[in-house]
Amino acid sequence: MEKLGIIGIGMTKFGKLSNESLIDLGRKACLSAIHDAGISPLHVDAAYCGNGLASQLFGASTIGQSIFWELGLKGIPVINVENACTSGSTAFHEACLSILAGVHDIVLVVGVEKMYEAQVGMLSSGTAEIEPGLGFLVPVTFALRAKAHMDKYGTTPEQLAMVAVKNHYHGSLNPLAQYQNILTVDEVLQSPMIVDPLTRLNCCPIGDGAAAIIICRGNMVARFTSSPIWVIASILGSGLYNNPPILEHWVLDYEKSKKAYEQAGCGPDDIDVAEIHDAFTIAEIMHYEGLGFCAEGEGGLLLESGGTTIGGRIPVNTSGGLLAKGHPVGATGVAQLIEITMQLRGQCGKRQVKGAQLGLAHCMGGDKHGDTKSITIHILAK
Amino acid sequence: MEKLGIIGIGMTKFGKLSNESLIDLGRKACLSAIHDAGISPLHVDAAYCGNGLASQLFGASTIGQSIFWELGLKGIPVINVENACTSGSTAFHEACLSILAGVHDIVLVVGVEKMYEAQVGMLSSGTAEIEPGLGFLVPVTFALRAKAHMDKYGTTPEQLAMVAVKNHYHGSLNPLAQYQNILTVDEVLQSPMIVDPLTRLNCCPIGDGAAAIIICRGNMVARFTSSPIWVIASILGSGLYNNPPILEHWVLDYEKSKKAYEQAGCGPDDIDVAEIHDAFTIAEIMHYEGLGFCAEGEGGLLLESGGTTIGGRIPVNTSGGLLAKGHPVGATGVAQLIEITMQLRGQCGKRQVKGAQLGLAHCMGGDKHGDTKSITIHILAK
Repeated sequence: MEKLGIIGIGMTKFGKLSNESLIDLGRKACLSAIHDAGISPLHVDAAYCGNGLASQLFGASTIGQSIFWELGLKGIPVINVENACTSGSTAFHEACLSILAGVHDIVLVVGVEKMYEAQVGMLSSGTAEIEPGLGFLVPVTFALRAKAHMDKYGTTPEQLAMVAVKNHYHGSLNPLAQYQNILTVDEVLQSPMIVDPLTRLNCCPIGDGAAAIIICRGNMVARFTSSPIWVIASILGSGLYNNPPILEHWVLDYEKSKKAYEQAGCGPDDIDVAEIHDAFTIAEIMHYEGLGFCAEGEGGLLLESGGTTIGGRIPVNTSGGLLAKGHPVGATGVAQLIEITMQLRGQCGKRQVKGAQLGLAHCMGGDKHGDTKSITIHILAK
Repeated sequence: MEKLGIIGIGMTKFGKLSNESLIDLGRKACLSAIHDAGISPLHVDAAYCGNGLASQLFGASTIGQSIFWELGLKGIPVINVENACTSGSTAFHEACLSILAGVHDIVLVVGVEKMYEAQVGMLSSGTAEIEPGLGFLVPVTFALRAKAHMDKYGTTPEQLAMVAVKNHYHGSLNPLAQYQNILTVDEVLQSPMIVDPLTRLNCCPIGDGAAAIIICRGNMVARFTSSPIWVIASILGSGLYNNPPILEHWVLDYEKSKKAYEQAGCGPDDIDVAEIHDAFTIAEIMHYEGLGFCAEGEGGLLLESGGTTIGGRIPVNTSGGLLAKGHPVGATGVAQLIEITMQLRGQCGKRQVKGAQLGLAHCMGGDKHGDTKSITIHILAK
């Protein structure tokens, strides 16, 4: 695909941010991205807002407009995108398409969410479906996947716990992460059981936060920065709805990462750093395999070997991931892209992956009949 | 812009459809569009779902996937779009961009909504904003606009009522319209007062329904049909957030219609038939002016002259419009495009506009500080 440049990034801290509204958070992230890009709001041709839950939780619609108007962005196309956990990264994908379509040159994307003040339960996506009513909530589907992976490949509860330990270690190096604390394997294993084998520390928290990115048509990038980060693959897909469901891996990971690597002209061995959708510890291990970072069934071993810790062969979730950086749903997909951008720019301080040239951001969202509803894979290059 | 072809359309009846779920309605409309196009679901490269309220009303997220999976559409990109009343037409716009970007060839768009079974009030968009809490609900903003228009241009309550009378007459000729009854001016004036000067019959109803369209890359259209309808302009914009607000007309209508006419290479006098966002009677009159169908302030006269009735100079809302065809929010923008497509195809039976060659669909959504949050204008050609 035609190259697109990331010229600005900005995000809020993730966590419990009760004193700031959804609009406050979104505006802060956007202003920060606009400042980082060194552009004026008047340069922005269109704006996308990714949000997963505000309609459901607060009756808030057309949030994008409310955020962008306060930035002085008037009259431009505004699109609000919802795609469960991939809401932010789907908004980013759509923003890329709008530039590729030749319609816009500079596009702002914000992902935003507030979950702590919610008045309703949070454990399901697609709550109008029959499954949640039957108790098939999100942690249950991941617990079933964990059991299947353990049965087939010998993955252990300790390996699952090590994902949380690694990501909390990474999060402790990220000032914007929700959790800054180091964990031990024992602490993870001994935290309260949610659904066997997933204890609470195997599950990501809810969160508040926002993240924003400014994307620019490739041939205009040089006007704004001499060190852009390039979007060289942007893939969006939906689930395959396998019947019976395949629990021990996501076929979708294999299919869509293949497509992303083809689009980028690289392979999994070329990736220097990755952000992966670790809503539950088991997911990160399964995604290692689906993305080709190791062979099928060897995710637990890759983790245990330290290969995905900073300093390892392919550091994963250097931001802390969903488990430690936090998971304000709509913001997550954009924040993952920001972490990769910062790594490629060399701006990550103590958690910097040395010499990172190529990074991958992977996000998944929603669940029905045992398959995910949405997947995005982006590959960025220095 | 590169020409895009509409090769398939399908919609459900609009009304109170309590026996059908959101997913049932969406699936029916999509199947009907796929059948109309004569394609297989396997031809569909990507799918967009426009929905305004299901998250808020039913906690339903990622509705698109739930609809499309039941059609056998698996693995493809699915994007859920929310943009208040323009949710459906924004989804259509985004679908157009995805083809223009060179990423997809054939894209399915569905707009869907269920409102009758809602458990919460329906009079506001952006309910997380401060305005609704202060009583500044949607009918209030339109009543203020009506008062301003009456003050400045001498528009009368009778003229407002005639919009409802005309659109109900048109709706009586449309088997899929929510209301099939003829009204008199007196009936409209004497219906219960909602907000002066808007009586109940000056306001559109809530509704359930779905509408779907299949769009195809221009150079592939001939494989599927010898009589496509062409999308020759697709404009999306957001409000100008004027301070103080301008009540007697929408600056946005003037600006964005100018852009749409430029893109299509035509002017308002070339339009043979139009669907206009008549959520309230006053809106249709104001939009006549903003779209250039008459001079500023002369909307009431154009209406009264019969110029916008079938048989007149520029028939508007031949489907019955939101007032009579109904307004299931997410479906509306797509249904407007279907009416224009049917008119250009010559499929409208008793409500057919003879020899229609060029049609316009106009939609507006959301409101804050007295300005609309979103506008779409599409121009279609035979």
